[in-house]
Amino acid sequence: MTDYRRLRVALLGAGAVGSQVADLLLRHGSELADRAGATLELVGIAVRDVDAQRDVELPRELFTTDAEPLIVGSDIVIELMGGIEPARAHLLQAINSGADVVTANKALLATHGSEIFDAADQVGAQVYYEAAAAGAIPIIRPLRDSLAGDRVQRIMGIVNGTTNYILDRMDTEGAEFTDVLADAQALGYAEADPTADVEGYDAAQKAAILASLAFHTTVPLEAVHREGITGIDKAMMDAARHAGYVIKLLAVCERLTGADGAESISVRVYPALVSRAHPLASVHGANNAVFVQAEAAGNLMFYGAGAGGVQTASAVLGDVVSAARRHIAGGVGVGESTRANLPIVEIGRVTTSYQITLEVDDEPGVLAKIAGILSEGRVSIATLEQTVIHDPSTSSGTESSLRDDNLGGVARLVIGTHKALEQDLSETVDRLAASGVVERVVSVLRVEGD
Amino acid sequence: MTDYRRLRVALLGAGAVGSQVADLLLRHGSELADRAGATLELVGIAVRDVDAQRDVELPRELFTTDAEPLIVGSDIVIELMGGIEPARAHLLQAINSGADVVTANKALLATHGSEIFDAADQVGAQVYYEAAAAGAIPIIRPLRDSLAGDRVQRIMGIVNGTTNYILDRMDTEGAEFTDVLADAQALGYAEADPTADVEGYDAAQKAAILASLAFHTTVPLEAVHREGITGIDKAMMDAARHAGYVIKLLAVCERLTGADGAESISVRVYPALVSRAHPLASVHGANNAVFVQAEAAGNLMFYGAGAGGVQTASAVLGDVVSAARRHIAGGVGVGESTRANLPIVEIGRVTTSYQITLEVDDEPGVLAKIAGILSEGRVSIATLEQTVIHDPSTSSGTESSLRDDNLGGVARLVIGTHKALEQDLSETVDRLAASGVVERVVSVLRVEGD
Repeated sequence: MTDYRRLRVALLGAGAVGSQVADLLLRHGSELADRAGATLELVGIAVRDVDAQRDVELPRELFTTDAEPLIVGSDIVIELMGGIEPARAHLLQAINSGADVVTANKALLATHGSEIFDAADQVGAQVYYEAAAAGAIPIIRPLRDSLAGDRVQRIMGIVNGTTNYILDRMDTEGAEFTDVLADAQALGYAEADPTADVEGYDAAQKAAILASLAFHTTVPLEAVHREGITGIDKAMMDAARHAGYVIKLLAVCERLTGADGAESISVRVYPALVSRAHPLASVHGANNAVFVQAEAAGNLMFYGAGAGGVQTASAVLGDVVSAARRHIAGGVGVGESTRANLPIVEIGRVTTSYQITLEVDDEPGVLAKIAGILSEGRVSIATLEQTVIHDPSTSSGTESSLRDDNLGGVARLVIGTHKALEQDLSETVDRLAASGVVERVVSVLRVEGD
Repeated sequence: MTDYRRLRVALLGAGAVGSQVADLLLRHGSELADRAGATLELVGIAVRDVDAQRDVELPRELFTTDAEPLIVGSDIVIELMGGIEPARAHLLQAINSGADVVTANKALLATHGSEIFDAADQVGAQVYYEAAAAGAIPIIRPLRDSLAGDRVQRIMGIVNGTTNYILDRMDTEGAEFTDVLADAQALGYAEADPTADVEGYDAAQKAAILASLAFHTTVPLEAVHREGITGIDKAMMDAARHAGYVIKLLAVCERLTGADGAESISVRVYPALVSRAHPLASVHGANNAVFVQAEAAGNLMFYGAGAGGVQTASAVLGDVVSAARRHIAGGVGVGESTRANLPIVEIGRVTTSYQITLEVDDEPGVLAKIAGILSEGRVSIATLEQTVIHDPSTSSGTESSLRDDNLGGVARLVIGTHKALEQDLSETVDRLAASGVVERVVSVLRVEGD
């Protein structure tokens, strides 16, 4: 066996991902040494509770509750504790004591990324975080390195497995959100408190990380527009299917060019209608995918498992091997480029097309009035479908009609718009709601990926 | 503007990719400088004919026919000439004079990769070749870096755009190979001499590169089993569709584990049946995709444009920026790891399932005889479909039958096998052909991705 240099590796946290990382480091030691050109010696695992139950059995003597002595003197520190503190303090300590760091902590990077990257830049250390953006899918290196000579125009990502699992089951089984969520919780696909997933917080953190990298711009988490999927119901799913769409929770990162040629970016997370013909529509279950449009490279898609302990551990270990190779090869770390520093526009300045579903009085003149409000609001109609809603006691279903001359009753209008400014659209929907002829605004959904 | 260090970049070759690389380097200079942390100065372009027509207009004073003085003194040398010589000599000269090198030359890497990587190792230089494996799709960094802590079990790649374009049109239009090929040539999707594409030579070079990287093993091009698509006809396409498959030219790189636990690999290129439900089945047109199965990461897929001047230029420029960052950061290059050096098994030792289509005498006992030959040959039947072929003058079509008691005439048998050893299968097919009851072996296709 080759006599390799030994690198000291400290692990902080031994949850679902951390315990798998420790296990793989210990089991595949000699293979990893061959790949890295260095022996990766796991010197200790810092945890809150040494006696806690772990997913895999690990040597008890590795565990400690005292992270600081472990960090000092390590060549590589892997932070898998999650949360902001003490993860942030530990990472900064590791960087300042000369270690390269590997983290999967998206919450930390989305809120304190600049501080951590700047600290690393100061001392020539490197921060690796492949597991922070889309689980096991290698997306950080492609964005940072492979596309470094190109210009990313747009990223559309399914970056949260829990919500994709829920939406996919709602779509394929015609089930209601609350039923699928309860089932997902029972199966372990969703947390007891599902807020971070279903309200889009997790996706927003990943969107901030991806956009920062793609547009060479610091994107604070507060600048990410965020909407969750709790408002999506069976009726909206059915209507989407009927129109040839599927509803996906998307992280959209977009480069915008103003009339004066000045560039800005938009970063947003919301449930959107995606055409069934789009590659993202066939991402099922808890899988993730990131669709990238670049000026020269064209359309690229990266697909894989978005979460899971062992899957995410794969991404973490790839980073550990990269860190080890860099230690052996010498040289300082490559800093995060934020030199473009493009302005980030708020959601109101974003342009997409929309699908607006309204319940309206089924009376003469209503369609003309609605068309007038849309036109005044600079929202142009692309498609229109009207369905008369019958009294369910006298009819077996609905009847499609594009006439504007039904007397009495309520009709459902599904309006597909051309591209419109979010602010115009939003004001127009308010005016529609207040128009006196609209009984109810059933839903307003953005259409992405056309 | 930041005052960056200047790096001298030499370009060898100005064909479809080279001219786009030069154009992007010149047009996006300041943006690339921000990304790389260095100004990338294109010092010259070595070509055979200074006056040749180029895809984009480039400053005439950059061109020279004398590559050597350009190479000496450059920090980064981009080789996009193609072919073995003088590309090989120029790359070695560049490495030995202290440059990092970027190449898209799959033929050269598949045949002389070891020599070039060893030369780079000797002097601490780095070889970048993202564009050599799947055009614009970032697959080299994910395999080399992101999955460095994981174990790749299997790669199935659609890595040749021309053949995917041809097979996709044959599938969707029900057209014949020769007609689609002629059309593809007229449209510029296929070369006047299409041998390198349709006979699988291009795919085999890429398979050798991918397998070397994934399995940390030097894979010589001669060790890649290669079959092309010229034998695929409309009837085979129709039969595949009928059975729920599509035919794709696949590069398959597989890790095998023997009964004794010893590992080996198989690298092969052939047209194979792929289930319509598999993600690779929905890769249309001239697109490429690489499906990777890794022990921890699970299934990953990378999708995008496999060829095209400007698309490939994106991958080349990503490499140039990486090379520049490394120059600025210092340190020696990270060598290619071939430390696993697994044995490469020949095609006969590979196990897959098969679809065998036979024309047989439609007589009593024939089915029993064929089943006997298969069983003796250790090939187990999974599915069987028999179709009686009527005289076209007396009947409008075919009639399905699983009976073994038709008298006279010819029947078509489609046999789906369980997994079998290629050598067993091949000998069994020979015995079937010589059995006296088989009129014609219509096709033998492997099934991949089940």
